[in-house]
Amino acid sequence: MLRHVVLLQWVEGVDPAAVEAVLEGLAGLPGAIPELRSYVFGSDAGLNEGNFDLGIVADFDSAEGYLVYRDHPAHLAVIAERIAPILAARSAVQYDIP
Amino acid sequence: MLRHVVLLQWVEGVDPAAVEAVLEGLAGLPGAIPELRSYVFGSDAGLNEGNFDLGIVADFDSAEGYLVYRDHPAHLAVIAERIAPILAARSAVQYDIP
Repeated sequence: MLRHVVLLQWVEGVDPAAVEAVLEGLAGLPGAIPELRSYVFGSDAGLNEGNFDLGIVADFDSAEGYLVYRDHPAHLAVIAERIAPILAARSAVQYDIP
Repeated sequence: MLRHVVLLQWVEGVDPAAVEAVLEGLAGLPGAIPELRSYVFGSDAGLNEGNFDLGIVADFDSAEGYLVYRDHPAHLAVIAERIAPILAARSAVQYDIP
């Protein structure tokens, strides 16, 4: 299996409603993209200074499944319409899992 | 439960043996820190440009369990002796999971 991990940081003073719209958009993706075997995301709990603001962990049967998700119109729409307008920084890794 | 996600980027031209030493050090942590309920990490699969180099996803029963791990001497030793010397960038998020 392949795991996709992405961490996002919002712009300073981000509107909480805009963050909520991201969470709602992400919540709709498993229903639209069956290649998503597991999709667990959430906002930072505030335990540490300097953290990013949102974490997403997505598991797929294979790299091919991940690529379907990466390039899926429903995913690209969430990125373009909800994430990009409030995004300050992003980091990501994909790695093989048992 | 609380999930801790961290992504690391190595310095350019990093020695593969130094990366292997990080992986070996991380592999020893579940045996040393029983608060770690799940610990799944791996090097980036090379599917995308601009990715970080290592992903770590660690799950705990609670924020308290995460704090034990964060401040545990075995963990701090891996950070100080193996990660810090080759670290270029780091991002992290902790978030509640079902």
